[in-house]
Amino acid sequence: MGRAQEAKRRDGNEIEFSRIVAFSDGVFAVAITLLALNLSIDTNLPKGELGQAIWDQRENFLAYAISFAVIGRFWLVHHRFFGEVTAFDGRLISLNMLYLAFIVLIPFGSQVLGEYGGQTTAVVVYAVNLSACVLVGLWMVADAHRAGLTSIDAEAHRENRIRSIYIASVFLASIPVAFVLPTVAQLMWLVLFFDPTSRIAERTAA
Amino acid sequence: MGRAQEAKRRDGNEIEFSRIVAFSDGVFAVAITLLALNLSIDTNLPKGELGQAIWDQRENFLAYAISFAVIGRFWLVHHRFFGEVTAFDGRLISLNMLYLAFIVLIPFGSQVLGEYGGQTTAVVVYAVNLSACVLVGLWMVADAHRAGLTSIDAEAHRENRIRSIYIASVFLASIPVAFVLPTVAQLMWLVLFFDPTSRIAERTAA
Amino acid sequence: MGRAQEAKRRDGNEIEFSRIVAFSDGVFAVAITLLALNLSIDTNLPKGELGQAIWDQRENFLAYAISFAVIGRFWLVHHRFFGEVTAFDGRLISLNMLYLAFIVLIPFGSQVLGEYGGQTTAVVVYAVNLSACVLVGLWMVADAHRAGLTSIDAEAHRENRIRSIYIASVFLASIPVAFVLPTVAQLMWLVLFFDPTSRIAERTAA
Amino acid sequence: MGRAQEAKRRDGNEIEFSRIVAFSDGVFAVAITLLALNLSIDTNLPKGELGQAIWDQRENFLAYAISFAVIGRFWLVHHRFFGEVTAFDGRLISLNMLYLAFIVLIPFGSQVLGEYGGQTTAVVVYAVNLSACVLVGLWMVADAHRAGLTSIDAEAHRENRIRSIYIASVFLASIPVAFVLPTVAQLMWLVLFFDPTSRIAERTAA
Repeated sequence: MGRAQEAKRRDGNEIEFSRIVAFSDGVFAVAITLLALNLSIDTNLPKGELGQAIWDQRENFLAYAISFAVIGRFWLVHHRFFGEVTAFDGRLISLNMLYLAFIVLIPFGSQVLGEYGGQTTAVVVYAVNLSACVLVGLWMVADAHRAGLTSIDAEAHRENRIRSIYIASVFLASIPVAFVLPTVAQLMWLVLFFDPTSRIAERTAA
Repeated sequence: MGRAQEAKRRDGNEIEFSRIVAFSDGVFAVAITLLALNLSIDTNLPKGELGQAIWDQRENFLAYAISFAVIGRFWLVHHRFFGEVTAFDGRLISLNMLYLAFIVLIPFGSQVLGEYGGQTTAVVVYAVNLSACVLVGLWMVADAHRAGLTSIDAEAHRENRIRSIYIASVFLASIPVAFVLPTVAQLMWLVLFFDPTSRIAERTAA
Repeated sequence: MGRAQEAKRRDGNEIEFSRIVAFSDGVFAVAITLLALNLSIDTNLPKGELGQAIWDQRENFLAYAISFAVIGRFWLVHHRFFGEVTAFDGRLISLNMLYLAFIVLIPFGSQVLGEYGGQTTAVVVYAVNLSACVLVGLWMVADAHRAGLTSIDAEAHRENRIRSIYIASVFLASIPVAFVLPTVAQLMWLVLFFDPTSRIAERTAA
Repeated sequence: MGRAQEAKRRDGNEIEFSRIVAFSDGVFAVAITLLALNLSIDTNLPKGELGQAIWDQRENFLAYAISFAVIGRFWLVHHRFFGEVTAFDGRLISLNMLYLAFIVLIPFGSQVLGEYGGQTTAVVVYAVNLSACVLVGLWMVADAHRAGLTSIDAEAHRENRIRSIYIASVFLASIPVAFVLPTVAQLMWLVLFFDPTSRIAERTAA
């Protein structure tokens, strides 16, 4: 395959390779920390209203917790994927940039969700944002896998693909629901705590 | 022990390991720098009122100084702990994420403390935030120690546990006090400058 | 050449060298992530107006997408250039700082473009900002090349110079146009998707 | 000397050492990028007033340029100093933290200077902030040098000390002047472009 031969081997280009990873880590670290900027209190509250003001932020705290876990999870997947990358080219770097562009939007999506969690638009914004992260991530991984830039074996790649499609499906399925029952749409995301992926992978492999 | 055997050895996975550390360092670096965003002045002050405006920020400066020292201290402890980690698995990475999630809240807690330092709620918010950092940190360390992922010897680990419990106790004990005398609750934290831990460790070892 | 002899060799100073690169990567990572702070919604919108508020941000999203691609592209060029650097001195570090000072302005330029995209001033601000990045970048590369601090061969350097001048020319040419037709000036930037550089390089080499 | 013997050698602890440096670099990178947050325009300007709004920010741009150069310079000095560090202990790490705490204040000082440049208070705030950076930096370097933790030779250290005292003196001398003529006090800082340090060092060495 032409692309794998033209790509730079990771072995002989450790510094260049580690810069891509370090840049990505920097973006993840800043994005996850910016989540906390969505938590903020007015500076001139009358005495005695601070407790209420913090209580009013409870949905922002919830959005913070969810989004921290989400970005942390994306980082972990990214971390594992790049641990398996054996060669890289401009196309992989570009797809990684596109992926990061959607990761960096999560603090915005999280702000919208925290402020307007019960509304259709907020749920749709967040679901679209996270689906985009998952799907672009899948694209990046599948593309690198096909081009022979990774050491992921076929079985692991298949499981990963099923998992990504499963996660994206849950988010995408919650979008139409959000137009009728926004709160139910959010509850649908809890399904993600149950990961039937390996069972699906087994059955479809048979 | 199963977990230690399944965990990845740090030796053969230096790059993956150093990414975890680099990501954590990035989060710490951003969080500690965001503390300065709590210091801010209005842009349209009438001439001659700037001095007063800065003087009015004195509690914010104090909160900045305290929180910078606090995050710096947490970073140092984190730094030392990861210096002793010899193997890592998904569980250690997850606990580290949870730990970072509370570290990233410190700039928010610091803003609340700086703006409303004399009020019960502000003192409680800050004390809860820091206790959570200490306790999750202790959990992470104890869990990794138990699973055989570190080279910390039993004695050092025991001292570390006593110190963490001591620090968390001071913060937790200040919470009920804050409901009656918020300023006294804050002064209680000064106790932390005296570190009786090694003496306690010696006595309880006997 | 005196400067190349006085410069520190990268080989014997990997740690110092990698700190320069790591610092630059950190600045790029923070700058690219701060782009998302230009996306923000009011926190007290009446029910049902969230969709409109997000739709009103469509130009901010466009500016975000453009600027993310732009900073990502600058990072890639910077990344490749430093991959070819074989020695460094104070002058290279200073030019790199100047370069970063213009990169860090992009989130501001992007905010102006997102909010006031149809106005002459906004287009001029953005075009000046990006031209400055390209030209200072060219200065840095040409200066290091002349001083013998890189392993870029003459032909590659010539192509790089032509490309930089081409990009800067498009931005600079859009400035007078922006005084008459700001929207057309922005559309001119699309020319950059067509890269005639290698053909120009071939013809002028003949 | 006890401290040098108890300190960890950099050679055998490269990872721990490089984390200190990486953390410091992260803080510098975030702080220098946050400077751009001081540049900001209103989002609802009437048509045609954008040019004026940007022109009104000219002092903010000047403060940005000065502060970027200042932080960049501090980073370079820090970078060179840590290039000479051969061993480290808790005390060096603590002094480094204190040093960073003043570096992180520069974006705030810069905001004050940009908004209220002609006023005594703003000039004093900035001069105090930068003097503190220089003096704490000198303290850190002198302390590490005395403890035998660096490979700086006596002559280079003497020059460095003279330079630091010279810079701090200019800032400190501008403070009383600022109470009478704030603009003149700022112009005094230009003296720093002339560096008589090496001549002073020569003369006092004789």
